[in-house]
Amino acid sequence: MDEFSLINTVVAQLGEQAQGRWVRLGPGDDAAVIEQSPDCEAVASIDTLVGGVHFPLGSTPLQVGYRALMVSLSDLAAMGAEPRYVLVALTLPQADAAWVSHLAQGMAEAAVACDVYLCGGNFAKGPLSLTVSVHGEIPMGQAVTRSGARVGDGVFVSGDVGGAGACVRQQDWDFSIPLSPGQERYLRPRARFDLCAHLREHAHAAIDVSDGLVADMSHICTASDVSAQLDRTAIPLSPGAVLEDALYGGDDYQLLCTAATDKLPGFTCIGEITVGSGVWLDGVQLEPRGYNHFGAA
Amino acid sequence: MDEFSLINTVVAQLGEQAQGRWVRLGPGDDAAVIEQSPDCEAVASIDTLVGGVHFPLGSTPLQVGYRALMVSLSDLAAMGAEPRYVLVALTLPQADAAWVSHLAQGMAEAAVACDVYLCGGNFAKGPLSLTVSVHGEIPMGQAVTRSGARVGDGVFVSGDVGGAGACVRQQDWDFSIPLSPGQERYLRPRARFDLCAHLREHAHAAIDVSDGLVADMSHICTASDVSAQLDRTAIPLSPGAVLEDALYGGDDYQLLCTAATDKLPGFTCIGEITVGSGVWLDGVQLEPRGYNHFGAA
Repeated sequence: MDEFSLINTVVAQLGEQAQGRWVRLGPGDDAAVIEQSPDCEAVASIDTLVGGVHFPLGSTPLQVGYRALMVSLSDLAAMGAEPRYVLVALTLPQADAAWVSHLAQGMAEAAVACDVYLCGGNFAKGPLSLTVSVHGEIPMGQAVTRSGARVGDGVFVSGDVGGAGACVRQQDWDFSIPLSPGQERYLRPRARFDLCAHLREHAHAAIDVSDGLVADMSHICTASDVSAQLDRTAIPLSPGAVLEDALYGGDDYQLLCTAATDKLPGFTCIGEITVGSGVWLDGVQLEPRGYNHFGAA
Repeated sequence: MDEFSLINTVVAQLGEQAQGRWVRLGPGDDAAVIEQSPDCEAVASIDTLVGGVHFPLGSTPLQVGYRALMVSLSDLAAMGAEPRYVLVALTLPQADAAWVSHLAQGMAEAAVACDVYLCGGNFAKGPLSLTVSVHGEIPMGQAVTRSGARVGDGVFVSGDVGGAGACVRQQDWDFSIPLSPGQERYLRPRARFDLCAHLREHAHAAIDVSDGLVADMSHICTASDVSAQLDRTAIPLSPGAVLEDALYGGDDYQLLCTAATDKLPGFTCIGEITVGSGVWLDGVQLEPRGYNHFGAA
């Protein structure tokens, strides 16, 4: 099993998610070729998942592949962008065709769910890690950044939060038995592209909840030079989650946004934007302490 | 020194190469936003460089950063595309601000040389590796693939080849003394975007020489279902290189293409395309044995 056989294994597993519609040339050449939509801008981000850090080492390759694509694509959803294509660079210690095939199956499932193509990639030998470069498009000038929150905006979060954090807190991974609903939430998040049109139409600022409500809200506040006042009783907790999981757990990949409205379909209002700085809960300021590679200063 | 301080260090070092002109939104948000040119397609590729595999472990971070960007961008040149932006994912064992700053300096030098923006990235903790996602544009339908070679085409290579291979063969890295000209060639290759307009206008097929003339020519032959007859005396060897270095050494990042012409400015004609299969030198068939992660089957 050599590098080129591995590539063939992945491409076979991807099937129609490797090339088609806007992807004119998929894997196999020096680069992929992708059509660009008129009057749109490109939106792009890159993420790395390291084995044992970003996913439990016992995770199945299908889980790793699915989750790697979803959490990376979530950054596009947070801009209000429509997903178009992804590139994947896989570093692995040895050529294990069955493992790679299941990884590709997981990536294909995520690609189908988000209607995105995996049109290029790279294999290298080394410690297990997966880097995903994600690419979307958005109508010119409509990208929703972190810096647009305005005083008086409501603060909104999609779905419910804390479920993935509760799962990580409990650390009861046993991959020999079926996953609990919480573990499912952690391992199979869903990038909220279903809400992107709402974001583009209504939101002044947005981010996805990867590091916990406090850390991610704090990014919006810093970038927008405002303060956020959150209401504890309004935060929609996932089943099994406690408030701490939602505030500091992260990994939910729901959307957090601000908008000059009281109601936003698909979202719950959990607070408001005021003058000042920092994130406050029922009048008490909260310290951001989400995940930070290399620890605090 | 935490993750966010490292990001600030890189962005400071990048200066004007982080955002500007077609890059509307650079590092610091969920994703970057890049303008798309009318009547153009996107061209995209991804590469990983692992410490000790793709660069000598004693390499300076400036050398690693420069080379990582250049060898990745070379894939765009091989399609005839104009470079637009890159995303970089860096995995490193500890937060070393000085090391990261020099790495970013090297990347900035390569970005300036290729007129490309580094508008997004990611830090993760883990064994040293660098993944670069490269993105260019090309007028609609003009991408030069590996599959377009036609019987009767001349085979052309840009510049001279074998210099980087000779350097790797000699393995005489001593980073405490100034680099030899051969080591300079290996560590500071130059993606040949200066020849892209020629490629788009004349070439039927193209690839960059990363794995050696035989392996890369073989990719064109397989994709195009043709054979290549190379002429030993015509191959332009780099100073200090022997034929073997050019055929099997790789890492030169010159362009190899086929075109229905006798002369191509900036290129040397080294053979012709015939019916059949495989790569032949003066009538003897050559086995591809370029670099292959995970070895042969």
